Amino acid sequence: MIHKLFLGLTVIAVVIQAYPEGSSSYVEDDAIMHPRRIYPKNSRIAQEEFQSDYWIKQAQATLKAKKEKELNKNVAKNVIMFLGDGLSIGTIKAARVWSGQQRGEDGEATQLAMEEFPYAGLSKTYCLDAQTADSACSATAYLAGVKTNDGAIGVNGQSVNCATNLDESNHVYSIAKWSQDVGKKTGIVTTTRVTHASPAGVYAHVPNRDWESNTGNADCADIAHQLLYGETGKNINVILGGGRERFLPNTTIDVEGSSGLRVDGRDLIEEWLNTKAGSKATYIWNRAELLSVDIDNDYLLGLFEAEHMQYYLDVVDDPLEPTLAEMTEVAIKMLEKSENGYFLFVEGGRIDMAHHGNLAKKSLAETVQFSEAIEVAKRLTSEEDTLIVVTSDHSHVFSQGGYPPRGNDILGIGGRGKDSILYTSLSYANGPGYRQEVDGARHDFSAYDLSDKELRFPALVQLSSETHSGEDVGIFARGPWAHLLSGVLEQNVIPHVMAYASCVGDGATACKDSSSNILSSKLFLMLCLSIVYLRRYV
Amino acid sequence: MIHKLFLGLTVIAVVIQAYPEGSSSYVEDDAIMHPRRIYPKNSRIAQEEFQSDYWIKQAQATLKAKKEKELNKNVAKNVIMFLGDGLSIGTIKAARVWSGQQRGEDGEATQLAMEEFPYAGLSKTYCLDAQTADSACSATAYLAGVKTNDGAIGVNGQSVNCATNLDESNHVYSIAKWSQDVGKKTGIVTTTRVTHASPAGVYAHVPNRDWESNTGNADCADIAHQLLYGETGKNINVILGGGRERFLPNTTIDVEGSSGLRVDGRDLIEEWLNTKAGSKATYIWNRAELLSVDIDNDYLLGLFEAEHMQYYLDVVDDPLEPTLAEMTEVAIKMLEKSENGYFLFVEGGRIDMAHHGNLAKKSLAETVQFSEAIEVAKRLTSEEDTLIVVTSDHSHVFSQGGYPPRGNDILGIGGRGKDSILYTSLSYANGPGYRQEVDGARHDFSAYDLSDKELRFPALVQLSSETHSGEDVGIFARGPWAHLLSGVLEQNVIPHVMAYASCVGDGATACKDSSSNILSSKLFLMLCLSIVYLRRYV
Repeated sequence: MIHKLFLGLTVIAVVIQAYPEGSSSYVEDDAIMHPRRIYPKNSRIAQEEFQSDYWIKQAQATLKAKKEKELNKNVAKNVIMFLGDGLSIGTIKAARVWSGQQRGEDGEATQLAMEEFPYAGLSKTYCLDAQTADSACSATAYLAGVKTNDGAIGVNGQSVNCATNLDESNHVYSIAKWSQDVGKKTGIVTTTRVTHASPAGVYAHVPNRDWESNTGNADCADIAHQLLYGETGKNINVILGGGRERFLPNTTIDVEGSSGLRVDGRDLIEEWLNTKAGSKATYIWNRAELLSVDIDNDYLLGLFEAEHMQYYLDVVDDPLEPTLAEMTEVAIKMLEKSENGYFLFVEGGRIDMAHHGNLAKKSLAETVQFSEAIEVAKRLTSEEDTLIVVTSDHSHVFSQGGYPPRGNDILGIGGRGKDSILYTSLSYANGPGYRQEVDGARHDFSAYDLSDKELRFPALVQLSSETHSGEDVGIFARGPWAHLLSGVLEQNVIPHVMAYASCVGDGATACKDSSSNILSSKLFLMLCLSIVYLRRYV
Repeated sequence: MIHKLFLGLTVIAVVIQAYPEGSSSYVEDDAIMHPRRIYPKNSRIAQEEFQSDYWIKQAQATLKAKKEKELNKNVAKNVIMFLGDGLSIGTIKAARVWSGQQRGEDGEATQLAMEEFPYAGLSKTYCLDAQTADSACSATAYLAGVKTNDGAIGVNGQSVNCATNLDESNHVYSIAKWSQDVGKKTGIVTTTRVTHASPAGVYAHVPNRDWESNTGNADCADIAHQLLYGETGKNINVILGGGRERFLPNTTIDVEGSSGLRVDGRDLIEEWLNTKAGSKATYIWNRAELLSVDIDNDYLLGLFEAEHMQYYLDVVDDPLEPTLAEMTEVAIKMLEKSENGYFLFVEGGRIDMAHHGNLAKKSLAETVQFSEAIEVAKRLTSEEDTLIVVTSDHSHVFSQGGYPPRGNDILGIGGRGKDSILYTSLSYANGPGYRQEVDGARHDFSAYDLSDKELRFPALVQLSSETHSGEDVGIFARGPWAHLLSGVLEQNVIPHVMAYASCVGDGATACKDSSSNILSSKLFLMLCLSIVYLRRYV
């Protein structure tokens, strides 16, 4: 008994020693600002990393690769845009570490797929009327090149209701439309409902993102309807994601037992097949169908859930639920049959939603799935003719604090508060993870299983749903003209650069510039020949 | 009376309406995740921004500038590295908005000095033994190119105490030394003590950043001593910042009434002047002296405070305290007299310290001062021969939450919690801004003057000092070879790239590559001439 007590006290003493925190009030003292850590050393750090040479060689290797990289000024036959919804800079860091740690590797040094791209930049995400973007106005910026009101998709700031939305001069078209106009194939892949804000940015024109299956006004078409009949939507070759409920009447129960949501009694899945009569078109609803689908289809509609697709961690190896990587692979294989190339939009849509629930682990897992999908695209395409752009729509109020040692469990403890209670390294400024103090004491999260995917990480302010953050997000690019996406850019510049690289749209394009370059080369050649002629014969 | 009551209730109703929050428990419902905002529209948004054309023209103008930008492969005669200590991506966003709003302009569209640079990248800041960097190990990475232990400066992971630090094979030298070795002048400008971790990274070799004026062991030299007598320190031409106390005996009182801290009885200011005998060297201690200093000095030591320099907001237009921009201007004007060019390190060192105190407003003001110093460098140098790199050592657990409308006061309210209490847009995951709940209710920060520079913004976990964050920080570059600093880089790659551009150090350099290019050009020319000769005469 005394032995156990002693052991217990020792454990407590060790834990307290491992996470020291001063008890004085705030002063600008270096010992407090930069507490000397007394964590046990991470014995897994490779011995060569203690040598200078290790880091010098690594840095010189990176420098060599970067300086030998030729500028890629090819025309991009294909453009693939990967959108990590809510993929903040901090989420990338945490997901990178988690990804490596899951495999028993060095988490901090791990690279997600987009981190190996040669160019990066930062995107300013504010919208016309919003300091902090939502996924609708930001989709309009990064797909159609115009900043608009919060909640609005594919329209400028003048479309605010059904009446103003009927004025088509207020509509703005996405790079998918610009690509279709020159004969390219197009596709959408997402883990959300295919009518949700980000994918809707590809094809819809609405002042209100909630018009997914009902606008409340017969004059204005809902988003699902626009996917079938809209100028852009009707031509999209591949549509993969969730959201079956938005296509089915509220009087029907779908194949998985969920009710439809449409109040107009229409079955848009059936209608979609009808509109494609004469082409080779297939509708699928589960993973097995996806994995065996004929890629010679001209059109493919896959709706794998009534609602959003499920979180990856909830359906690992589920026979019905494909991964984002699997959907991306099918989409690329179908689209790459296009002689004129393609534009594909792939969204990791639930990074954001997990954050909204303060479900940090699920958000990191969704990010890793997103990275897996990017790996597929890297494998199936060539840097020579395919521009891949990875970015996000907005950030989240998510941070990784404390001074944990290298290799610390990214879902683990960050340190100890002045109240002597341990705190998690990951936390949120707000959201449902908030816990009320008990008898004036902060909630002790170390009492929970921090590896539980359902654990809502702590939040400062209680909200039903954690909010976005207004800070910049990353842009990562490889392939033709990827170098133009460096620097700090307004978010709406991104599609203009993608259009430049792939020679679509009404703005400047590499093809227009190239023909003027060829012209000047020809002029130069003629000038040279004239001089030679004159010197010889005159 | 009834009239006043009615007015009061109306105001409350309007405020509640302006910041709605659902009261249900967490569900994944779009109405909760994306509450339709009912803030009053910001009437200051320019009318042209409601038109598509405005954004299309703006994006096409950016695209034009980017595509017409030629790669700059000149040799960088000069390198200026700007280090924003603790300058997280989120800090840049908030400071940008604050900067614009201070001038009555559009905050969100404002650009800080480094945001206009053509290239950006992200820096991975973890250290050898630390998931989250401190300013010492990170300085060793971004200045000497080697990752090392938390708290260590200018040494690899094998130097952990005085004994191991005596082994000079454990020392690593910074790009300042590499630059001195080829005859370049060097300088340090900082708002911290010149012996603090970041500037010490330029010239010192210690396993413990706290050895600023005393190592506790006569065999090992302290940081201030190394600034006078160390291989790098003794050759630094310009040293401007705070930290007088680290140069004076603890038995003396300095010119501003502060006590020295040295226990060895030495006056290193006097010694510094003695070591420079034979050269033109000046010691100064106040702003007036700085602004009238003879820039023909070979050496300049300016120590403007006993401790760190004061926060800008505490000493605006102070006759004794120069700004970072003023110090930077003098440094550049002195160094640019060097025929062989120079390396200058400029630190905005107190962005970090204000964050540690949750003093958000001071941190934003320090960031704006940092930006002003970068503007000076842009004005005084040419992109043709000067590489300017702006980066940070680590991030902070600082975020901007809620869904405020465009133009919302960045120091203002972000929304309303489920508890009906307003919350600030800016907050921290931890730090001294924490306030205990009162009777189970969250502290109401809206009752405070949010524009007060001394207000500590709210924090989730109480700590004496807010902690760093482990997420990536930005890199912003212009000038020769700036394009190599795009992508996601390990932090220790940065000095290798700066060395490449300016042809210093033992690694690859543009000059070495250029001479091998010239060689191959010569070989090519000889081959051509040989063919012409053979065709004509053989």
